[in-house]
Amino acid sequence: MTDSPVSFQMLKTCPGSRARAGELVTPHGIVPTPVFMPVGSQGSVKTLTPEEVRDVGTTMLLANTYHLYLRPGIPVIEGAGGLHKFMAWDGPILTDSGGYQVFSLAGLRRINNKGVVFRSHIDGSEHTLTPELAVQYQESLGADIIMVLDECTAIDSDYAHVEQALRRTNHWAERCLKAKRRSDQALFGIVQGGIYPELRKQSVEFLTSMDFPGYAIGGLSIGEPKQVTLSITEETAALLPQDKPRYLMGVGSPEDLVECVARGIDIFDSALPTRVARNGALFTSSGRVNILNAAFAEEQRPLDPACDCYTCRTFSAVYLHHLFKAKELLAYRLATIHNLTFISNLVCRMRDAILNGTFPLFREDFMVRYRPTDEATRLDQKQKWLQSRNNDI
Amino acid sequence: MTDSPVSFQMLKTCPGSRARAGELVTPHGIVPTPVFMPVGSQGSVKTLTPEEVRDVGTTMLLANTYHLYLRPGIPVIEGAGGLHKFMAWDGPILTDSGGYQVFSLAGLRRINNKGVVFRSHIDGSEHTLTPELAVQYQESLGADIIMVLDECTAIDSDYAHVEQALRRTNHWAERCLKAKRRSDQALFGIVQGGIYPELRKQSVEFLTSMDFPGYAIGGLSIGEPKQVTLSITEETAALLPQDKPRYLMGVGSPEDLVECVARGIDIFDSALPTRVARNGALFTSSGRVNILNAAFAEEQRPLDPACDCYTCRTFSAVYLHHLFKAKELLAYRLATIHNLTFISNLVCRMRDAILNGTFPLFREDFMVRYRPTDEATRLDQKQKWLQSRNNDI
Repeated sequence: MTDSPVSFQMLKTCPGSRARAGELVTPHGIVPTPVFMPVGSQGSVKTLTPEEVRDVGTTMLLANTYHLYLRPGIPVIEGAGGLHKFMAWDGPILTDSGGYQVFSLAGLRRINNKGVVFRSHIDGSEHTLTPELAVQYQESLGADIIMVLDECTAIDSDYAHVEQALRRTNHWAERCLKAKRRSDQALFGIVQGGIYPELRKQSVEFLTSMDFPGYAIGGLSIGEPKQVTLSITEETAALLPQDKPRYLMGVGSPEDLVECVARGIDIFDSALPTRVARNGALFTSSGRVNILNAAFAEEQRPLDPACDCYTCRTFSAVYLHHLFKAKELLAYRLATIHNLTFISNLVCRMRDAILNGTFPLFREDFMVRYRPTDEATRLDQKQKWLQSRNNDI
Repeated sequence: MTDSPVSFQMLKTCPGSRARAGELVTPHGIVPTPVFMPVGSQGSVKTLTPEEVRDVGTTMLLANTYHLYLRPGIPVIEGAGGLHKFMAWDGPILTDSGGYQVFSLAGLRRINNKGVVFRSHIDGSEHTLTPELAVQYQESLGADIIMVLDECTAIDSDYAHVEQALRRTNHWAERCLKAKRRSDQALFGIVQGGIYPELRKQSVEFLTSMDFPGYAIGGLSIGEPKQVTLSITEETAALLPQDKPRYLMGVGSPEDLVECVARGIDIFDSALPTRVARNGALFTSSGRVNILNAAFAEEQRPLDPACDCYTCRTFSAVYLHHLFKAKELLAYRLATIHNLTFISNLVCRMRDAILNGTFPLFREDFMVRYRPTDEATRLDQKQKWLQSRNNDI
């Protein structure tokens, strides 16, 4: 593991929190951390071209092995020369193992120690995923960072069930490492253990004994209260080695990014900024607003006059409001550009603050100004999304 | 009319056909003719930013007064400083009068000599459109070229009905001219008369006596057989003055553009290239193809390797096929870019051929190579579209 194709350089730690600033060196370029990865599930960050993905400040993106395996199929992407070429993105990519989607999206799962049998959410066809196949598919896709296959448990699973799943996850991590062939990809381990600190600790101990080049925290942001997300993240991150990158999977609201950077996370991914954008929910320095609100029906200034994104530089809030009302496809794209630019800028500002030693001040200031969605609305939206995401725009 | 803000310079006529190459000088720039205008009904060429609209070769675009009047409303656009600023497009714009949509899209019409009362297709609210209001709205929008309000008759209307509508259209043309206040917009007349050559002739005689700076041919491409479109276009264009631009409304398939340029048309608009793009129908030098066809499921080359559009330069056909299969929003945009680039290139090549004296050869060569949709499919698709366009993507 010492000659990993992906290395992490820690540049600065915050004395007033656990925040860290660093650099992730990958075969497709250097990624300053903290970093947020937009999600391109099906080989496309929804509505954007690769140039736009770059322009909004993206340095690394995430693609879903589950989605790409089902459609267009791994051989098609292999035939293109890999995912970078297929989707015309020459920056770093991280692929997940497919595990999370198999457990949350696909139907009729049968799981045993060998792997998991599931039905495609597209056509109901039956497929098998094993640790070895998860690695093989990700090697064919050719991302810079690939992930072990893990068993994801629901947030209300009891201790015994999570413990059993963790044993399997640990065993699968070993098999993934053993199955790995390509030397130009880094395989990250995934800490599981649900909401049980003792199991999280066991998971960290097991994985760190295998010396992965990076560690993810999985099994969060799946419907639990935000305080649970934050406390499990805090406790788990504190156990992970200082010199390895830490990736919190599935977290991406502005307020969560700030609070989880403060808890020592380096890497994030989430479909939230792009998904809510397509519903008209836009991030501003004072909080999340809905562009469909009547307040914007005559607002001739940009949505956020201080924002330097293409959307705010070019169009008024009323134009954006009009496009959403008229269901014009350009609306979803302009909103996506705005939200991803907001997130990129936020992450850059956090990094600068860590490097300058002003992160605690930045964090306090941000949390005072930024009005997030209230907790009840958030959980309700999350639930709706989990149920309906196949029909998402 | 001699000091019209829009002037037309004829540069060359084709000796082997009636094709013409010229220049339309407008307050927002020079437009080489023949020209095709993409349609931005609601203040957006669907899926594209203004920069992309420019990049695909657009020199002038069309926006619909009917749509913009209903949503966001004329005062909002006036408040933005006009349509150019509202939609961030600084090139020439032509707006229609709203007449066509009122007669084809809105419900419950009551027409009399004063104007037409209609119900919004959005919320059923009742509105009145008169020649004076049509001009007033278009002056508020501020396009470079505006159109008279005309009464549009169905393609199966009998002679007496079309004759009566034509009398009203003529009267309305006079009232539009009289209502016009702004000196920086050109008002074009619209020839009506259905499929009756005698009425088309009467319409031309009446309008040309008023010396408009340009003439449109309306009431075609509304479901009639293609041979009728071509013959009425040919006969009508032949009657129009040589030194004024001629605009055939609603025509925009590649084969129609070639055949109607050959009949002396200078300006076209149509939603067809962008609408069919969003359904996966793409123009290539050998004809129209559907990207969803299985033939593209493993095609690692671009859709058209000779095409210089962004889509073909950047992505493989299988990637585009995948995006359509997966219903990714980027699909509609990449297809739109491809089709509009194809049309722009086609129009440019026709213009070059006219200037070089090789247009008849070009026309023959194009019509041999290009396989359009067959006539039955075309009429069927048109019918479906006319019925369903409010639910269009």
